[in-house]
Amino acid sequence: MTATESRLEHLYADFAEAHLSPLWTQLGDLMPAAPTSQAVPHVWKWSALYPLAELAGDLVPVGRGGERRAIALANPGLGGLPFATPTLWAAIQYLGPDETAPEHRHSQNAFRFVVDGEGVWTVVDGDPVAMRRGDLLLTAGWQFHGHHNPSGRPMAWIDGLDIPFVHYTDTGFFEFGPAAVTDRTTPPTSRSERLWAHPGLSPLVRHHDTMTSPLAAYRWEHTDAALRAQLDLQDEGHPGALTPGHAGVRYSNPATGGDVLPTIRAEFHRVRAGIQTTPRRDVGSCVYQVFNGTGTFDLGETQHPVAKGDLVVVPSWTPWRVSADDELDLFSFSDAPIVERLGLNRGLAVQGAQLP
Amino acid sequence: MTATESRLEHLYADFAEAHLSPLWTQLGDLMPAAPTSQAVPHVWKWSALYPLAELAGDLVPVGRGGERRAIALANPGLGGLPFATPTLWAAIQYLGPDETAPEHRHSQNAFRFVVDGEGVWTVVDGDPVAMRRGDLLLTAGWQFHGHHNPSGRPMAWIDGLDIPFVHYTDTGFFEFGPAAVTDRTTPPTSRSERLWAHPGLSPLVRHHDTMTSPLAAYRWEHTDAALRAQLDLQDEGHPGALTPGHAGVRYSNPATGGDVLPTIRAEFHRVRAGIQTTPRRDVGSCVYQVFNGTGTFDLGETQHPVAKGDLVVVPSWTPWRVSADDELDLFSFSDAPIVERLGLNRGLAVQGAQLP
Amino acid sequence: MTATESRLEHLYADFAEAHLSPLWTQLGDLMPAAPTSQAVPHVWKWSALYPLAELAGDLVPVGRGGERRAIALANPGLGGLPFATPTLWAAIQYLGPDETAPEHRHSQNAFRFVVDGEGVWTVVDGDPVAMRRGDLLLTAGWQFHGHHNPSGRPMAWIDGLDIPFVHYTDTGFFEFGPAAVTDRTTPPTSRSERLWAHPGLSPLVRHHDTMTSPLAAYRWEHTDAALRAQLDLQDEGHPGALTPGHAGVRYSNPATGGDVLPTIRAEFHRVRAGIQTTPRRDVGSCVYQVFNGTGTFDLGETQHPVAKGDLVVVPSWTPWRVSADDELDLFSFSDAPIVERLGLNRGLAVQGAQLP
Amino acid sequence: MTATESRLEHLYADFAEAHLSPLWTQLGDLMPAAPTSQAVPHVWKWSALYPLAELAGDLVPVGRGGERRAIALANPGLGGLPFATPTLWAAIQYLGPDETAPEHRHSQNAFRFVVDGEGVWTVVDGDPVAMRRGDLLLTAGWQFHGHHNPSGRPMAWIDGLDIPFVHYTDTGFFEFGPAAVTDRTTPPTSRSERLWAHPGLSPLVRHHDTMTSPLAAYRWEHTDAALRAQLDLQDEGHPGALTPGHAGVRYSNPATGGDVLPTIRAEFHRVRAGIQTTPRRDVGSCVYQVFNGTGTFDLGETQHPVAKGDLVVVPSWTPWRVSADDELDLFSFSDAPIVERLGLNRGLAVQGAQLP
Repeated sequence: MTATESRLEHLYADFAEAHLSPLWTQLGDLMPAAPTSQAVPHVWKWSALYPLAELAGDLVPVGRGGERRAIALANPGLGGLPFATPTLWAAIQYLGPDETAPEHRHSQNAFRFVVDGEGVWTVVDGDPVAMRRGDLLLTAGWQFHGHHNPSGRPMAWIDGLDIPFVHYTDTGFFEFGPAAVTDRTTPPTSRSERLWAHPGLSPLVRHHDTMTSPLAAYRWEHTDAALRAQLDLQDEGHPGALTPGHAGVRYSNPATGGDVLPTIRAEFHRVRAGIQTTPRRDVGSCVYQVFNGTGTFDLGETQHPVAKGDLVVVPSWTPWRVSADDELDLFSFSDAPIVERLGLNRGLAVQGAQLP
Repeated sequence: MTATESRLEHLYADFAEAHLSPLWTQLGDLMPAAPTSQAVPHVWKWSALYPLAELAGDLVPVGRGGERRAIALANPGLGGLPFATPTLWAAIQYLGPDETAPEHRHSQNAFRFVVDGEGVWTVVDGDPVAMRRGDLLLTAGWQFHGHHNPSGRPMAWIDGLDIPFVHYTDTGFFEFGPAAVTDRTTPPTSRSERLWAHPGLSPLVRHHDTMTSPLAAYRWEHTDAALRAQLDLQDEGHPGALTPGHAGVRYSNPATGGDVLPTIRAEFHRVRAGIQTTPRRDVGSCVYQVFNGTGTFDLGETQHPVAKGDLVVVPSWTPWRVSADDELDLFSFSDAPIVERLGLNRGLAVQGAQLP
Repeated sequence: MTATESRLEHLYADFAEAHLSPLWTQLGDLMPAAPTSQAVPHVWKWSALYPLAELAGDLVPVGRGGERRAIALANPGLGGLPFATPTLWAAIQYLGPDETAPEHRHSQNAFRFVVDGEGVWTVVDGDPVAMRRGDLLLTAGWQFHGHHNPSGRPMAWIDGLDIPFVHYTDTGFFEFGPAAVTDRTTPPTSRSERLWAHPGLSPLVRHHDTMTSPLAAYRWEHTDAALRAQLDLQDEGHPGALTPGHAGVRYSNPATGGDVLPTIRAEFHRVRAGIQTTPRRDVGSCVYQVFNGTGTFDLGETQHPVAKGDLVVVPSWTPWRVSADDELDLFSFSDAPIVERLGLNRGLAVQGAQLP
Repeated sequence: MTATESRLEHLYADFAEAHLSPLWTQLGDLMPAAPTSQAVPHVWKWSALYPLAELAGDLVPVGRGGERRAIALANPGLGGLPFATPTLWAAIQYLGPDETAPEHRHSQNAFRFVVDGEGVWTVVDGDPVAMRRGDLLLTAGWQFHGHHNPSGRPMAWIDGLDIPFVHYTDTGFFEFGPAAVTDRTTPPTSRSERLWAHPGLSPLVRHHDTMTSPLAAYRWEHTDAALRAQLDLQDEGHPGALTPGHAGVRYSNPATGGDVLPTIRAEFHRVRAGIQTTPRRDVGSCVYQVFNGTGTFDLGETQHPVAKGDLVVVPSWTPWRVSADDELDLFSFSDAPIVERLGLNRGLAVQGAQLP
């Protein structure tokens, strides 16, 4: 060791002692040329997920304390943390016949999407919201919510939240509510829909929190009709769909036209049989769930066949595309509002994507 | 005349000569304590309007040049000008069997509302939009539009525009389009609805002019359902309606949640039989049309019984309320976006209103 | 007269009787191909204006009732109304030694611009604001304000307001305040400046009315420095100025970056000797005042030599340009916020302008 | 082990195998009642920092690859990562006489604040910006920037960035520029200031990226004057300061009035001798640097005397206040824009804070 090397070693030891850390030795890791997520692209098969949730239904009670029988996707690149991506949480939640998940509220924004089944009501700030196949149900930050299952059958669905992001940024609050749900009625339509699910119409008694959608349920029949219309219009020679054979809608806040949650964007895509989507890569991460059909996801260098219920995680800046074997219906959610509201979108999505 | 009076007289003559005008002699007229509109409250009876429109249908052809068989409300206080209020235009338009109103476009924002009948299509930037009872149809500024009537029956409706405002502010442009409409097909649903009339869903291929609603038709079945839901919720003990027995919706741009047109707000109100609304007065003017039912408008000191089709003009700052004999359905439009976007709303609407 | 003509004549009489007016007979006037303002381009010479104001100072007292010794430009095309354009008011105001213009407030937005002199304080919601040559002073809607002149000399300045617009739209309120001003101190700097006239710095105790600038005075030394910097940068080969030899700034609300008043835009332009500006025409009207220098305005077909203090009115859609004999400094204000906030700008400003 | 326990153990093993993780075993950690940051409150003494930076100046060259001689605060609670808080980076940067830090650009937003010294120019997108004591200098995301020191003396300052946040969210891009700076001139004033540092004035040639301030330098003389004015106004009985003896300004984007960077808020506070600030706690983290004076920070349960140059890190939801021995000037920066733009602010700042 030269004298200089020795002095440097002392300097670095003094840095550590003083809780300091030099930039120059770690620049490449901290500030790479493009995002290099620790999260990895991964597919969770519904055929594996659902039986485990069912088994948890037998073995693990649901109630105050644990609060929810939710089993989270733990991205293999994130060291066992229950995070689908650094910002997004995705879990399968399972509720047996006559079970109740108690009420609570938290800063974290949440939604549920139902790939199969029905029979559970989620009660959001006192409003009972039926959950049925294909529906997106919202629970925005700080709304009380609990679930109960008056049907004779178990039901499972996916939960999407910003738990990792809120955890990382130290911005989360949590409060317990009643152990039972506050309203056990089982109307087919929530009060939020009765007020807000009329296209292009807003109640004159206005909703004032512009960051939170006043609509708690986005029903499958509307999503399906909107996608069908885009493809029909395309067949008739009119604009509307994204690209040939590829339709898409964004779930939106009817009071603002913006995203349904302050940190989470939700979309639904339909890809016709035989169509391969345009390769793209985005700043920010995304989760897809197959709602119907079969196909193949290309995620960077690897290919993944997918079927109904499968969950696909696409980390930031991963090039990807999907090919539909038969007509493929895909629900998706992403952290795009975080990226866009903070000016971090470089707008390079499609150009940069190259796939084998 | 004193020397001073004489000098003053000379001064005022010099002012006039130099195209000058003193403030101090006319302050009260120019800047009153509260708005004192030259426009007066007035009611036009549908029973008088419709036969005149019908007669015009016999006598006046529709076509290039005159462009539209539209007969405007001329507020009795505005000296014969064809203006319902200083900012708003309201007219009955009449189209006979097989007639065509040629295509044109203009800066002025327009809508049509159908109090009765059906059978006409308005073609907006090439998109054929069926017109049916209870529908609100939009033609935002600078969109080409024409109307044609393939049905065997005449049809009449009301047009609402910002012609007086655009005229006064010297901001209007006008361009002729084809004498025939560009698409004579008669689909029940416009392409704009197929893309945008799904509650809480936006196409991923986005609409970029945020001032203009991408939705050309707001259908009666949705308006009716939204109003009914508010009153039902009220009966069940939940919020949603405006006041007891009074429900209301605002027509809104699904891409932003804002008003349907940059200068015009449109609403629909339902007042239950026996209910009298809260007196109010607003900065800015408004026009009501009775869609269903009977009742009485109090407009300042006077009372006006109304029935289906009647048009009621409420100038700025006029105290008013309505009482429903049987259930009263009211379409309305106003210049509220002008007032609000320019910071001219004093927020005194309800407090200041006193009625006999 | 044929039978049809006779029936038509009857119909038109019935229309008039029923307060109705047909569109087809007046379409061209109401909806011209491009704005055809009744207002005309016109120049008021300061050399004529100022002596008349001085004479009014001798003959007309200022005080409660008349409120202000303000003499308005009455556009020759507007039938004697005291309106510079359909939306804008411009007046010369004159205050003699030791005179006071009493306090009042109104919905109308106002500013003052000082082409010459000093010695008056305007007191805005209790904050005394010194008025000096080259300054822009704001009195936004509903702020109490009065003026007093503790100097031994008379002072004159121009007032700009949206009186015609507020009058036309029936949106104005007016309230008297104290006959004397509430604070007769004469500080060189207003409290609003002490809080807000620091570039890029906002007080942490925030100002909440985002439509109204919290800054009551825009001082000449800043305007002059900003214009000089743009031309210097241009000489050094850097961007910043508008076009060769033409610099311009917009007065802005430091809390939002937007216009200083909800309905009025204010700018200042500097044109170097020998430079002719690019011809342009705008949707909306504008008033210029020469602050320094001499030159020529081309307004449509006519040419107008101008010198210090002269006021130039440019109605909507009038093609115009200015040529500087010696360096020309121009203050201007316009109704651009009305046009832009209501989506009425067609963006054709420069392209459409043709001058002899 | 019972049969159930054994089945559960199998289930959890299956979860791990399938990259799944149950919520119910870790809810309290993931979703605490209030933020419980791993970051800890900590104070770095300038008297320790500066000599280490000086020593690094002797031992570590600056140049391409390492890019910057920056030594970051590594929060003792964050396991050695070079992060002041989970979202914010703070470092001392040191540049010796005649040294150059090469040009590069990155998505990360950066600023520099100068607690002492002068003589370095930072060149931002080709615009040379002098760095002097008390100045805040901006380098928004994706602007090329390098530094050079033509003075004969070394200079140190602090860098603030959103490196941890951008790293965590996988949103960062980085690109090398020239090894030398592109403009080695040393003007006292940057071109950005010549265009934008005029209070309430914007160039007519507009700046279009509304998320990025067009002003690269916020000079000490303005900050000092703004703070002095607030305290003077307070002495005169007028509003403006935060609380008795406590003045504060926010650095803002003159084109919008918003924060200077999309992810970082910067402020400056002045606390008079003998004053103790109101205790508060915020959602989101913050870093303070003492610019002048001495005092004591209460951070939760502990007390920390501070002097010029000391850096204080306040993690999310830590109750804190500061007491000034002599007049205390404090620069601060925080992640408040992240919290506010994503709707995560609970608005409980002051109420919840309790200190011994």
